[in-house]
Amino acid sequence: MQNDLLIRALQRQPVERTPIWVMRQAGRYLPEYRKVRAQAGDFMTLCQTPELACEVTLQPIDRFDLDAAILFSDILTVPDAMGCELAFKTGEGPVFNHPVTCAEDIAQLPTEGVTERLTYVFDAVRTIKKALADRVPLIGFAGSPWTVATYMVEGGSSKQFTKIKKLMYQAPESLHALLDKLAINTAAYLTAQIEAGVDVVMLFDTWGGVLSTQNYHAFSLHYMKKVFAHIPRDYAGKVIPRIAFTKGGNQWLELMADMECDALGLDWKSSLKDARERVGDKVALQGNLDPGVLYADPETIADHVRKTLVEYGDYPGHIFNLGHGIFPDIPPEHVQALVAAVREGV
Amino acid sequence: MQNDLLIRALQRQPVERTPIWVMRQAGRYLPEYRKVRAQAGDFMTLCQTPELACEVTLQPIDRFDLDAAILFSDILTVPDAMGCELAFKTGEGPVFNHPVTCAEDIAQLPTEGVTERLTYVFDAVRTIKKALADRVPLIGFAGSPWTVATYMVEGGSSKQFTKIKKLMYQAPESLHALLDKLAINTAAYLTAQIEAGVDVVMLFDTWGGVLSTQNYHAFSLHYMKKVFAHIPRDYAGKVIPRIAFTKGGNQWLELMADMECDALGLDWKSSLKDARERVGDKVALQGNLDPGVLYADPETIADHVRKTLVEYGDYPGHIFNLGHGIFPDIPPEHVQALVAAVREGV
Repeated sequence: MQNDLLIRALQRQPVERTPIWVMRQAGRYLPEYRKVRAQAGDFMTLCQTPELACEVTLQPIDRFDLDAAILFSDILTVPDAMGCELAFKTGEGPVFNHPVTCAEDIAQLPTEGVTERLTYVFDAVRTIKKALADRVPLIGFAGSPWTVATYMVEGGSSKQFTKIKKLMYQAPESLHALLDKLAINTAAYLTAQIEAGVDVVMLFDTWGGVLSTQNYHAFSLHYMKKVFAHIPRDYAGKVIPRIAFTKGGNQWLELMADMECDALGLDWKSSLKDARERVGDKVALQGNLDPGVLYADPETIADHVRKTLVEYGDYPGHIFNLGHGIFPDIPPEHVQALVAAVREGV
Repeated sequence: MQNDLLIRALQRQPVERTPIWVMRQAGRYLPEYRKVRAQAGDFMTLCQTPELACEVTLQPIDRFDLDAAILFSDILTVPDAMGCELAFKTGEGPVFNHPVTCAEDIAQLPTEGVTERLTYVFDAVRTIKKALADRVPLIGFAGSPWTVATYMVEGGSSKQFTKIKKLMYQAPESLHALLDKLAINTAAYLTAQIEAGVDVVMLFDTWGGVLSTQNYHAFSLHYMKKVFAHIPRDYAGKVIPRIAFTKGGNQWLELMADMECDALGLDWKSSLKDARERVGDKVALQGNLDPGVLYADPETIADHVRKTLVEYGDYPGHIFNLGHGIFPDIPPEHVQALVAAVREGV
């Protein structure tokens, strides 16, 4: 690996400078992405065509010289392959044609043959790895079982999560059965990504933050642990570092740090200093600039970057990132300013 | 006041039992509410017709014998009266016909004559107070300046709050000017509610939780303090207790407890025990059952209520409530079970 800053930082080894990548770095804010997206026609075709997924994965690396690539895909490929049939409707976000509505639906969900329907992802990984030619590591990912379950039960995006909370309080054993199946499939999916060549894996727990502490423990954290317990710690002689990110999970960092993972993602509501004090030297920390900062002018962006780096301090184990995905209307030049400021350091 | 449990609990005085009211207790889950709502035609007509607002305010008191009534209104009446023109479109939630898009829009917003356009609210307060005949206290309320500003700038509900974050990072002084005007109008609005007869006031900071700590301090907390600084501490010989509620604000309870307020609302992600330890005896605490619990059967609801009461312990100053507004598809019998369990105690 020509640039292994990310791998070393994830293992809390000394690094020459703080590595940086950006959540949703391959996305709509880039004109070259919008071009390929238009060419593909729809979002799922983009995910399912390895050459196109490869092209958009590499775009931000070529443009900004970031320290990691992340597989272009979606957290909802797994339930799609489980039979829920994912569609992206304009202005509505993701929608499932066959949402999970009852215990019978859950009983019928498969735990075998799911990764076989996701070969397009592993093909994309192999294509990307070849194109990257070891410039930077490739991050593979999946949604956490809880987060993916919210979309399956709600039928798409949600604001109040009433359907899954209804399931949680009326039939908790059914929800556990769903999460268990998702954990099994997610572990198999990440294992196949590792076998196809990803260097790091990340679990996105986008909606763990809507739970009470007790429910977070029982319905989200427990199943992330199960996923991590069933994927290889190393592959082909290399350790495969693991990142877990619960948006809105600031209050549970100590619990999360006890998982079998190497790094925790932090949203912009967390303080890196406080987080480091709370988790000790158990894990690396990734984050956590407010994505809104990228609306500011380049000098202000650089100021915020310096403040973030100073706040984190000199400990090993920091990966710079936003606290959430980049907004689609951010000027690419502002990302350039972000990357330059992180490279310059304090 | 025949039942002053709420007033005493808000002042951390001893009470015979924990008082309870429910956020959105006058709402769609009640068939009698849906009937009046249909009769009114649209939501704003319901808010603007004192007799109808009074009728729905009293419905949950009559049905459940709750320990407080809360004025039936909306946090967006203030920006409506400032000229943004509020409309409720089916399936879309609140929409402003004249959203705030630039510094010029903000410069033109009035800070005089706003309460004069809200006399329907004060008429409703007087009508409700008369109908309540001192059975229970009446809570008046407003949105926090930050929360109301998000709707004004985004033009309605939002998921990512990109427009207001853009304003925050590109023109912070404009956002401060907007928040300042909102604080002035909100203080005048709450003062007029107090003069019309409300016994308690509450600030709903529904979206403070999307901010970083530094921004919460600068853009939300600061202006809630300003509102509290400009409303009377007592009126007509009675203390008017104040409640502040930042959803997703668990990490800032110590900061909030330093405001000139009597009680903090807690969402379901907070722990009452932990919150009590952190704020000491500075404030009463209101909350915080996960609203999803009301989907469970009555026995399970009662179990959760007992756990919540035990967790809080024997300190004075607890007002039972949900951690967020009640969902519209909760059976009213489940609210009955909730109230009964709180009355029964541990």
